[in-house]
Amino acid sequence: MEPTVGDKAGNIAKSLQYIAEAADNGADLVVLPELCNSGYVFESLEETRALAEPVPGGPTVDAWEKIAAERGLHIVAGIDEADGDTLYNSAVVIGPGGYLGTFRKVHLWNRENVFFTPGDLAFPVFDTPLGRIGALICYDGWFPESYRECALQQADIVCVPTNWVPINGQDPNREAMANILTMAAAHSNSVFVACADRVGTERGQPFIGQSLIVSYTGWPIGGPASADAEQILYADADLDDTARSRAWNAFNDNPLGDRRPGEYRSAG
Amino acid sequence: MEPTVGDKAGNIAKSLQYIAEAADNGADLVVLPELCNSGYVFESLEETRALAEPVPGGPTVDAWEKIAAERGLHIVAGIDEADGDTLYNSAVVIGPGGYLGTFRKVHLWNRENVFFTPGDLAFPVFDTPLGRIGALICYDGWFPESYRECALQQADIVCVPTNWVPINGQDPNREAMANILTMAAAHSNSVFVACADRVGTERGQPFIGQSLIVSYTGWPIGGPASADAEQILYADADLDDTARSRAWNAFNDNPLGDRRPGEYRSAG
Repeated sequence: MEPTVGDKAGNIAKSLQYIAEAADNGADLVVLPELCNSGYVFESLEETRALAEPVPGGPTVDAWEKIAAERGLHIVAGIDEADGDTLYNSAVVIGPGGYLGTFRKVHLWNRENVFFTPGDLAFPVFDTPLGRIGALICYDGWFPESYRECALQQADIVCVPTNWVPINGQDPNREAMANILTMAAAHSNSVFVACADRVGTERGQPFIGQSLIVSYTGWPIGGPASADAEQILYADADLDDTARSRAWNAFNDNPLGDRRPGEYRSAG
Repeated sequence: MEPTVGDKAGNIAKSLQYIAEAADNGADLVVLPELCNSGYVFESLEETRALAEPVPGGPTVDAWEKIAAERGLHIVAGIDEADGDTLYNSAVVIGPGGYLGTFRKVHLWNRENVFFTPGDLAFPVFDTPLGRIGALICYDGWFPESYRECALQQADIVCVPTNWVPINGQDPNREAMANILTMAAAHSNSVFVACADRVGTERGQPFIGQSLIVSYTGWPIGGPASADAEQILYADADLDDTARSRAWNAFNDNPLGDRRPGEYRSAG
């Protein structure tokens, strides 16, 4: 979707409209972009704060809890979070029974550092009837550690609310580097990944769209979505697929189970 | 190249021929495939042992040291190593002045576990006049930790002798997953990567070729090479490119410098 910076009521309303459409088409799990209730390119800390809310208990999570209950689905969505005076670029995880938890973006990008405090909750993974759901946000995906942390906690799917921006040196003849990173992470961690990117240009900053849903094999099962138009991307993801955690051969588990932390001596 | 299993003298001779051709064309650094002096699909531990040699001091490293000195170049190449009774799937790093060091494959694949002992040298990085050179082998590249370990030790280039085999579920309309993993690793670590794969089918096991040289930006600067024919792949890699270690913006270093180990709590 394309949020409008500052128009929180309008962004919430638009998110509900898309969630309802996805539910009509059978969605069990809906992922929305980073900061989809506030917009992204803030002009000041004051603007960021004015759009922020406590999580849970604010109007955005209230609205998402209500529709999740009504439609019996799960939501992972980016939100401008206020914890007292401290602001976080967060993703909220909500089920039909209500609020399940929050991920706070660990690796802040560029001027986000002016407005937000880096996440302090590591990479929580939430048990749901659908499976175990992890989350990370945008630049977190540039760190293989982010996906590993989710996978080492037996995440079945990692949901990625994101506001991908153009990358210096992107080869225009190849898929977006963001998509390549996503495919590599899904394959290396044997985990589904669902990325929801925003589109549009906000206060001069373009975003690249191209949302992607990737199987645990590393290959896309939905998308990439449009680079510039709002679009709901659907995929059938069998989170219970027993092949996902199957050993790759008689001698190997997979690149998750075969890790050798004793030989990773520089990463402390 | 396509080694012939068991024909060690022939494999060494072929490697010298290709190194000489690369030197004639200006190569400063030559990367050769995994186990390129022995072949890969061993029938027994005895066969693996009969083809192995001490490193340095055996005939393969002697020959590579000699040509490296004569032609003033560096070599990173896969070798069947015997350390007493213990066998390793190793990569040797050689400069014009001789042997520099060894990497022993940390993550063994499939029946390699029958013949070899897992590497115990972590991921050494070697200072050379060309830059800092790290190495990993084939399945090591499925573990983002392998590249991270090299990059955290300021590797400028990671050399990957490999014998990539076909992957279950490879999308035939997309580039090889091995190449996608390589591009993602180069980008996420801001490091050059040079992968040298073998070609051919050995005792029923096919290999996929498609060697690749990738810039620190994540985009290929050489290859992919042929999937089935021997080929020397060349690229100009400016290891001193100051843009490589430049901060990505006023607030961020890059996904190496911006790591937050305190939030990586599951990876011990």
